Amino acid sequence: MQSLLNEILEDVRPLIGSGKVADYIPALGRVDANQLGIAVYSNDGELFTAGDGLVPFSIQSISKVFSLVQAIQHSGEAIWRRLGHEPSGQPFNSLVQLEFERGVPRNPFINAGALVICDINQSRFAAPAQSMRDFVRRLSGNPLVISDEVVARSEYQFRARNAAMAYLMQAFGNFNNDVEAVLRAYFHHCALRMSCADLARAFCFLANQGHCLHSGEQVLTPRQVKQVNAIMATSGLYDEAGNFAYRVGLPGKSGVGGGIVAVVPGRFTVCVWSPELNPAGNSLAGLAALEKLSARIGWSIF
Amino acid sequence: MQSLLNEILEDVRPLIGSGKVADYIPALGRVDANQLGIAVYSNDGELFTAGDGLVPFSIQSISKVFSLVQAIQHSGEAIWRRLGHEPSGQPFNSLVQLEFERGVPRNPFINAGALVICDINQSRFAAPAQSMRDFVRRLSGNPLVISDEVVARSEYQFRARNAAMAYLMQAFGNFNNDVEAVLRAYFHHCALRMSCADLARAFCFLANQGHCLHSGEQVLTPRQVKQVNAIMATSGLYDEAGNFAYRVGLPGKSGVGGGIVAVVPGRFTVCVWSPELNPAGNSLAGLAALEKLSARIGWSIF
Amino acid sequence: MQSLLNEILEDVRPLIGSGKVADYIPALGRVDANQLGIAVYSNDGELFTAGDGLVPFSIQSISKVFSLVQAIQHSGEAIWRRLGHEPSGQPFNSLVQLEFERGVPRNPFINAGALVICDINQSRFAAPAQSMRDFVRRLSGNPLVISDEVVARSEYQFRARNAAMAYLMQAFGNFNNDVEAVLRAYFHHCALRMSCADLARAFCFLANQGHCLHSGEQVLTPRQVKQVNAIMATSGLYDEAGNFAYRVGLPGKSGVGGGIVAVVPGRFTVCVWSPELNPAGNSLAGLAALEKLSARIGWSIF
Amino acid sequence: MQSLLNEILEDVRPLIGSGKVADYIPALGRVDANQLGIAVYSNDGELFTAGDGLVPFSIQSISKVFSLVQAIQHSGEAIWRRLGHEPSGQPFNSLVQLEFERGVPRNPFINAGALVICDINQSRFAAPAQSMRDFVRRLSGNPLVISDEVVARSEYQFRARNAAMAYLMQAFGNFNNDVEAVLRAYFHHCALRMSCADLARAFCFLANQGHCLHSGEQVLTPRQVKQVNAIMATSGLYDEAGNFAYRVGLPGKSGVGGGIVAVVPGRFTVCVWSPELNPAGNSLAGLAALEKLSARIGWSIF
Repeated sequence: MQSLLNEILEDVRPLIGSGKVADYIPALGRVDANQLGIAVYSNDGELFTAGDGLVPFSIQSISKVFSLVQAIQHSGEAIWRRLGHEPSGQPFNSLVQLEFERGVPRNPFINAGALVICDINQSRFAAPAQSMRDFVRRLSGNPLVISDEVVARSEYQFRARNAAMAYLMQAFGNFNNDVEAVLRAYFHHCALRMSCADLARAFCFLANQGHCLHSGEQVLTPRQVKQVNAIMATSGLYDEAGNFAYRVGLPGKSGVGGGIVAVVPGRFTVCVWSPELNPAGNSLAGLAALEKLSARIGWSIF
Repeated sequence: MQSLLNEILEDVRPLIGSGKVADYIPALGRVDANQLGIAVYSNDGELFTAGDGLVPFSIQSISKVFSLVQAIQHSGEAIWRRLGHEPSGQPFNSLVQLEFERGVPRNPFINAGALVICDINQSRFAAPAQSMRDFVRRLSGNPLVISDEVVARSEYQFRARNAAMAYLMQAFGNFNNDVEAVLRAYFHHCALRMSCADLARAFCFLANQGHCLHSGEQVLTPRQVKQVNAIMATSGLYDEAGNFAYRVGLPGKSGVGGGIVAVVPGRFTVCVWSPELNPAGNSLAGLAALEKLSARIGWSIF
Repeated sequence: MQSLLNEILEDVRPLIGSGKVADYIPALGRVDANQLGIAVYSNDGELFTAGDGLVPFSIQSISKVFSLVQAIQHSGEAIWRRLGHEPSGQPFNSLVQLEFERGVPRNPFINAGALVICDINQSRFAAPAQSMRDFVRRLSGNPLVISDEVVARSEYQFRARNAAMAYLMQAFGNFNNDVEAVLRAYFHHCALRMSCADLARAFCFLANQGHCLHSGEQVLTPRQVKQVNAIMATSGLYDEAGNFAYRVGLPGKSGVGGGIVAVVPGRFTVCVWSPELNPAGNSLAGLAALEKLSARIGWSIF
Repeated sequence: MQSLLNEILEDVRPLIGSGKVADYIPALGRVDANQLGIAVYSNDGELFTAGDGLVPFSIQSISKVFSLVQAIQHSGEAIWRRLGHEPSGQPFNSLVQLEFERGVPRNPFINAGALVICDINQSRFAAPAQSMRDFVRRLSGNPLVISDEVVARSEYQFRARNAAMAYLMQAFGNFNNDVEAVLRAYFHHCALRMSCADLARAFCFLANQGHCLHSGEQVLTPRQVKQVNAIMATSGLYDEAGNFAYRVGLPGKSGVGGGIVAVVPGRFTVCVWSPELNPAGNSLAGLAALEKLSARIGWSIF
């Protein structure tokens, strides 16, 4: 496995230079584009990393999985009264569908849906940002995970489009808490810094029937795990979920920080990271690495 | 397995009466709503049926899988220059997205995409309707499969919306053959009559790395099989693909005749049939039966 | 004229009861629905009123004309770099078009356009709400015109949809000032209380080549007056501008408070008021009164 | 007047070269782009022409006014059960709005609306194309007006987008006749060849309370004339009606052949022609000429 990971990274490294680092906020744009890392964590507790697999990066939208899991933990099926679990067929930050569908977001992995999930969590937790940070520390087994205040503040400053979505949902009666407070929590989640190794470990319960190997916690029921994986498979990669299923064939979730986590149910989790993105907003080299890995080991669920 | 299938049918039979038989053409509306059937076909060639599992019905959109497979067989990856493989997030017959995306349909399982596939096949086959009929006869091992002329003619008579889509794609330069000719072939595919048993057998190559057990044919490569399954998983149930993944967790394809086929990669195919549909256009009792079956046997790919 | 106005009010009074008072904020919903007033102001300075023509009401979107005129006064043609002057073909508060057209509102009389105009005015005036109040006091010759603080606060409280629009425009770089500050000014404009007589006098410069009879002020150039009238004619009545042109044939502007002002170029201004609205958000009895008046005196510009 | 027309043509002639001749069908693309003509027809029967004001050209969408007038003549207000009279806020040939508004076009001057009008006329006339040709011969007083068969056939050949609209309306139950037959009539109307002088004369009833000066016919009632002018004012120039009102201030109708007709109610009709179009599909030099003419003589209705 170790040599396979090394090999794959070398195979995809030439792609660096063809993508574009996210620069909608200055703090993200400054990242070194040449970084490339991978980590695989097996259900029997073995961790393999290669390249920059131990370097923390901004997890961004990968945090939407953690928020969703928190919401399922305390509210279960009731959350689906507030949002759907259908693919959107639209860019992740579009308001068009949100207006036509009267403020009910399509799924928890587009921004509007993640904001509704944060609104649900805001009603439950006194300090949502800290609750989330503590949650991912437990899941990853890394007590040093922190949220980058500079990034969080910068995202808040450029919050206009997310604020527009939140207010639009409020206009339709689908937002219960103060918009600004929810946005602050949301950006703190996005600004969490974790390495490929952290994320592979933190997602392991999704490959393992809900059981977190290193913490011993039963995070979700086996049935809930299948549901979260199903949502990742149909909506996890923005408007490229179909392509990810076609090319990689695994449930996954990406972030504009360049990370992608994928789940091989019953066997492994894997996380790749490379900051340059393709036009759909997913890590260019990361996507290629996962495609090769899936093909080489026959990991596709299909 | 046999007793499980019987049991599941009895569990879901009370749902009959809560849905609505498709009636957009008179010929479909006349079907007896009380019918309910299921068939499971295993990769070692065993067939189980229950209820009306041997009664032929109108396969409708399930035919879109066969058209796609034909197109992949003769044109391979080149077809993706004409359409995508992303979920649409829109009703199956919407023109809105088609106009915004300049005549390029999102995937082969919405009507516009299936029409492009038929246009591709029209350029290749002298007699597309017969080629398709012969293809499904081979795949199902049933030389008696026919297309219902009354249904095909009735669909052609009420072709307005499909004609609108085809002409819109032609306006964008994404349609090469005569619209009326392609529509006639398309409706002949939709009007094919097959039983649950026929369909379970006809889909077995998708559970079996591309190999058709009873004909011995290698229909697709293993890689192509994964790709077709991936597209079914993200786009196979109209605007309910996410829900199907969430509840059932298998690649599948439905038709407004009330049939749903699902694939358990490496193990089984299953087909259920009950004519009454839910608001999303999928078999109400059929969906419930697949959900129960998947839960009972733990067939979910997630 | 006096007897004609009385007669028309009696003709349309039976319509009261068929419409619906705006109730999106409680402060507006409490108005007495039985009120009905009209005022006509001629270019030679004669004022005619009937019914409740001297009762102040919430002018709401009629204020968008005053904001536009202020912006033209200090910025002229430059404002059209920020918004258009085309009809929208959409409900007044839709975000769909705003997203497709990248944050550039169609015209100054839909909410998004009025917010951009307020943003332009915010950059110019130290105290936009007071500037506007003083401006309409001068235009109407009524030093007692005030903005209703209860209404303004209530609108701010239910600002979600307008906030969504403002943030969306900010996301596209078409909003320069603090969203909350601009919204507060905007709602103060909407909450101005004026009578039909006040409004007929305040609009007289638009019937009179830009000259305000009673203040003696040249408010706009004759060319600018024609332009403002043109925009009212094509976009002044939300998504019913075409119907207003068809039935009444005059440039006009309505508000959800139930007021409608219309301009007979070179001759008169007229204002009607009745709080109940039709489904398009325009005064039901007011529209009927203007239709009758236009037909009786042959005032149509067409 | 004569010298004014000459002068205006010279003023705008330098604009030739900045626009683009319509080339969606070859037959239109072959026109000489250097042509520029104008004609003014007064309510007392005087005709002034300048430049190429006597050269026939393809009237294209200007024919939509004649179709509408025919439909009003035989069906009156009943036509508004089939379409609206609101501006569309969309390109003239968009299907998006048509789908959202369930097959009911916004107004008779977008393509979908004109097709519905042609469908209405098809139900009334045995030979719609000849009825129309005879109608415009009478209106223009020119018995030699013909429809260009080459253009009509070419438009039919490239009918895909119009066919898509017609079929979509049929799918919503808003189309009663054979789509192909209606399209053939529609394209024959578009292919009528008339000069500026022909068109100025043919439109004179709209400046003259419905009375056609030279034929003596009362074409419409005075009230119907105001209604047609109102629709032209709000929807006559595709998605530039607002700009035309803003710059010219007259009811008008344009065609992609480069003609624009405008009405000065009670006084004149005017027609300009220059084949090159601006991005909105309206004659570039023609629009400029009308703006100058309106400003010079103070013709604006506002």
